[in-house]
Amino acid sequence: MTTPRFHGVIPPVVTPRTADGALDLHSFGTLIEYLIAGGVHGLFVLGSSGEVAFLTDAERRTVIEEAVRVTAGRVPIVVGLNEMTPARMIDQLQLVEAAGADAIVATAPFYARPSAAEIEAHFRLLAAATTLPVFAYDVPVRVYNKLSVEMLVRLGSEGVIAGVKDSSGDDVAFRRLVLANRAAGSPLVLFTGHEVVADGALLWGADGIVPGLGNVDPRRYVEMYNASQNAEWDRARDLQEDLCALFEIVFQAQGVSGEAAGLGAFKTALVRLGVIATNRMSPPVPPLDNDTTDLINAIVDRAGLLVR
Amino acid sequence: MTTPRFHGVIPPVVTPRTADGALDLHSFGTLIEYLIAGGVHGLFVLGSSGEVAFLTDAERRTVIEEAVRVTAGRVPIVVGLNEMTPARMIDQLQLVEAAGADAIVATAPFYARPSAAEIEAHFRLLAAATTLPVFAYDVPVRVYNKLSVEMLVRLGSEGVIAGVKDSSGDDVAFRRLVLANRAAGSPLVLFTGHEVVADGALLWGADGIVPGLGNVDPRRYVEMYNASQNAEWDRARDLQEDLCALFEIVFQAQGVSGEAAGLGAFKTALVRLGVIATNRMSPPVPPLDNDTTDLINAIVDRAGLLVR
Amino acid sequence: MTTPRFHGVIPPVVTPRTADGALDLHSFGTLIEYLIAGGVHGLFVLGSSGEVAFLTDAERRTVIEEAVRVTAGRVPIVVGLNEMTPARMIDQLQLVEAAGADAIVATAPFYARPSAAEIEAHFRLLAAATTLPVFAYDVPVRVYNKLSVEMLVRLGSEGVIAGVKDSSGDDVAFRRLVLANRAAGSPLVLFTGHEVVADGALLWGADGIVPGLGNVDPRRYVEMYNASQNAEWDRARDLQEDLCALFEIVFQAQGVSGEAAGLGAFKTALVRLGVIATNRMSPPVPPLDNDTTDLINAIVDRAGLLVR
Amino acid sequence: MTTPRFHGVIPPVVTPRTADGALDLHSFGTLIEYLIAGGVHGLFVLGSSGEVAFLTDAERRTVIEEAVRVTAGRVPIVVGLNEMTPARMIDQLQLVEAAGADAIVATAPFYARPSAAEIEAHFRLLAAATTLPVFAYDVPVRVYNKLSVEMLVRLGSEGVIAGVKDSSGDDVAFRRLVLANRAAGSPLVLFTGHEVVADGALLWGADGIVPGLGNVDPRRYVEMYNASQNAEWDRARDLQEDLCALFEIVFQAQGVSGEAAGLGAFKTALVRLGVIATNRMSPPVPPLDNDTTDLINAIVDRAGLLVR
Repeated sequence: MTTPRFHGVIPPVVTPRTADGALDLHSFGTLIEYLIAGGVHGLFVLGSSGEVAFLTDAERRTVIEEAVRVTAGRVPIVVGLNEMTPARMIDQLQLVEAAGADAIVATAPFYARPSAAEIEAHFRLLAAATTLPVFAYDVPVRVYNKLSVEMLVRLGSEGVIAGVKDSSGDDVAFRRLVLANRAAGSPLVLFTGHEVVADGALLWGADGIVPGLGNVDPRRYVEMYNASQNAEWDRARDLQEDLCALFEIVFQAQGVSGEAAGLGAFKTALVRLGVIATNRMSPPVPPLDNDTTDLINAIVDRAGLLVR
Repeated sequence: MTTPRFHGVIPPVVTPRTADGALDLHSFGTLIEYLIAGGVHGLFVLGSSGEVAFLTDAERRTVIEEAVRVTAGRVPIVVGLNEMTPARMIDQLQLVEAAGADAIVATAPFYARPSAAEIEAHFRLLAAATTLPVFAYDVPVRVYNKLSVEMLVRLGSEGVIAGVKDSSGDDVAFRRLVLANRAAGSPLVLFTGHEVVADGALLWGADGIVPGLGNVDPRRYVEMYNASQNAEWDRARDLQEDLCALFEIVFQAQGVSGEAAGLGAFKTALVRLGVIATNRMSPPVPPLDNDTTDLINAIVDRAGLLVR
Repeated sequence: MTTPRFHGVIPPVVTPRTADGALDLHSFGTLIEYLIAGGVHGLFVLGSSGEVAFLTDAERRTVIEEAVRVTAGRVPIVVGLNEMTPARMIDQLQLVEAAGADAIVATAPFYARPSAAEIEAHFRLLAAATTLPVFAYDVPVRVYNKLSVEMLVRLGSEGVIAGVKDSSGDDVAFRRLVLANRAAGSPLVLFTGHEVVADGALLWGADGIVPGLGNVDPRRYVEMYNASQNAEWDRARDLQEDLCALFEIVFQAQGVSGEAAGLGAFKTALVRLGVIATNRMSPPVPPLDNDTTDLINAIVDRAGLLVR
Repeated sequence: MTTPRFHGVIPPVVTPRTADGALDLHSFGTLIEYLIAGGVHGLFVLGSSGEVAFLTDAERRTVIEEAVRVTAGRVPIVVGLNEMTPARMIDQLQLVEAAGADAIVATAPFYARPSAAEIEAHFRLLAAATTLPVFAYDVPVRVYNKLSVEMLVRLGSEGVIAGVKDSSGDDVAFRRLVLANRAAGSPLVLFTGHEVVADGALLWGADGIVPGLGNVDPRRYVEMYNASQNAEWDRARDLQEDLCALFEIVFQAQGVSGEAAGLGAFKTALVRLGVIATNRMSPPVPPLDNDTTDLINAIVDRAGLLVR
């Protein structure tokens, strides 16, 4: 069995902003170096964690181009493609391809209310419009449809999609997907997006992880992945538990949106670690306040991550 | 009490396509003339019924420009603004303003998962970026958040928004909105999007209707609206019941998406009436098949609407 | 057209408790007299507003028997039948029949996750087990299934059910139900449970109302119903608006459950009116606190309802 | 670290029926012997898999008594307590205690729409009414509330509840629960109800499994549990994968309810294995048809489970 090109730890890179709200390309570059130094196997830009929904087309282009420039081929660049319907997604595709992406991660339609057949047609239309590998992004909490195991394996077997990023939170379906994919000859590369149960996903047969928390502690995710490749499950579990302790940063903010609490916590921790300059979010999402920042800093400090 | 500029029957105009999938501007122009001849008080383009989520930016621009050109000021043109977050919505705003819109109808953020405070900030950011009147579009079935009565009246009282298009299906909340708005001095113009209970909404105090079915039978909606202005409620109810009978066209298709069944039915009926050329939908939505078309045609014929 | 036996205003009677948590039969009797004096056309006991889910079987039996005893045939007694599945519902039926109910109002299965076919079979099994008229209670917010228009009219046409109590909040479906029922020869008697849009429902053709707020102001609901029977729609609307103002009592409590806020408000208002003794709720629902009580009392006082 | 009394594999025993719909106590006894011979560590009767929602009180009592009688103390009997509110649950408690249960597994309120505070009060009221250990059953797919990690650990630390049966499908929360419980000194015994990802749950620190599929193949679950106790994770994973292959029986039926497809599959497989007499379900749930039975039998036969 050969290792697929896309595998291992591919964090969904956050998009730093300056104090006045502009893209902070300096911080973005520093973050990419931090992640590569941590040993990650790829970078996923313009994911939900990258605030893709909040970026203009111009900002999206800048983010990809800068990621490609800074990375300079050291690891592959996977790009989130995030639009309501095929026509709009294919429009974005030109931007993404021109900027130098190595693969795309595409959602099902949203705002639209597609049937299962329409979701499948959507992925077929998209794949027909690009030569890049297409990963299906399964994120029902945002698009309000779950991608079916049967459709995913069928699209994989026909070469329409190259893999799946599973952020469905439905581990029963993920387990079925792993086994159905294997029975079909493993056409799909399978990633889990759930950063606190990745040891389990790896035990079950996931090819990799797309952990938002990997922005903060890339090295430990890489070590966990390596442990899993050696079937050192107790060690993988122990590393995951350390990461779970760190993940508590996302539960510190109260009464705010998930974006504010979760992505805000990643940015706040990265400020504490000296990697990026501010915890500023994209409007209308507010940055976390000082009290929450203190709580997050304490958790980060306990985790022993002050690497600079 | 003066009648507000935006009031009455403002149908969400469907976007016809040719047999090869392009925008069908000829049919679009014919449809606009059909609606204006029916007496409508405005046109709402790029709404959900206009398949806004399925149109590229270039197509969106063309639709607005063509609506403005054909209408030539006879009725106001209201334009749907439909993007995930404020930054992307404000980008679209330039397109919409340049093309000549008279007002915009904007959703809450989607794909993003905003808090109530973020939704409110979203509308404030949007309104600050345009001189056009902003209507808030309340459509939880697509964006998965309900706009609160309190927020809407507050934004109206402060002059941030000019009105609301309510497609929430929550008539209890709509009734509260009508009364809270009146208590605040009626800063908001209130439209219902529910085409089969509009007689009730008018009885309660709605200023107008945005009926998808109004594409098919604009005149009867206008007559119902006029009856309501004369407090002829039994007559309004009878006209609404005729429209309910016609609305059954949207329930004829089985096992397809809501877009395919509902918007497909409107287009199919307009073909039967000779107003547009095809019932072609935007990908990945399939057009309705021949059997369903026969069922729809029979309902349309019974309604006595073969106006050409 | 003859008036059906069950029609008009049939409030879902709340179940008073004493300060130590027991059923307060004295208050219950006083409340029934207050409602009958208000002109109601029937009483609905053991509905959701009657806290049926919180009562033991012994308490349920006592409530029905006491309602039957106090009412003494002056108006019919409709009883909520509220169990997870047919077998358990049929068990309860014995209790309900023995205690003297005139009709039952039964939910779809819950906790169970039935298919549409199983829901239909459920009502058929229930109806086969009793000679009492069966009303289907459509309350998706509690049982997480919507009863379909087609099934309801089919069950009505076959004589399985006598009517529907619609608390679905889906007025589009309710309108379709009214029209489909009429087309089928009106086998069903149709009630709406939505107390603030009842003028609309009556305009559309509802036979009656089951208003929780009718506990507090029965007379005004009766006057609205009478206005509707005379097609005095402006008057019905005005009375409904007064009732909407009063309904604001249910929005005063913050951060509590719907039962605590809504049913708690009805009880609190009835204490203010001198009809019942306490606003005590069934465990684990807390009674409303003094601050909320003050807000509710102010609304009640403004409504001019201090009838004793 | 000592092993808690309740641990390991505790299948939720299905409730067999005869061809004429009565409880089939002979099959029930045979099934219990089959499970004990398979090495299970306890029996859970009157769970969702035991069709508790479909059984009358008399049937519930019979099921517990028969389980106690047949088991004769060889393994503990855990009993599902499944009612809408505390008062009704406490009523059932008498039945459960008299029949000889060793522990109870209780849901949050349902049909009612409780606040978080009311859910917590519900468990406190219940625990105060019994000397039996209380397990909280977290099943949002049926009761539409998720039990919070914080509440569960608090109730455990105060001795109100003894453990949790997690059927939430939310593994992120389950992981947090495992770690928060450990940080609190492990007051709670933690079971997962998800039969196809139990290897992961055991890796994370679950104390046991409540697998519906354990009715069909108890021995393999016990072997997987034993492997986990020896930290033989690859072996646990392999056994789990065999069980996943068998679990496909629940996906064979199309267009029926979850109860019909899932519980119907367990019963159908047990008929194939010669353990019980019929695959009859409780009304209104239909038994699986012959075509589906053939598909299930083929899966069962492939799994090498024809033990008699």
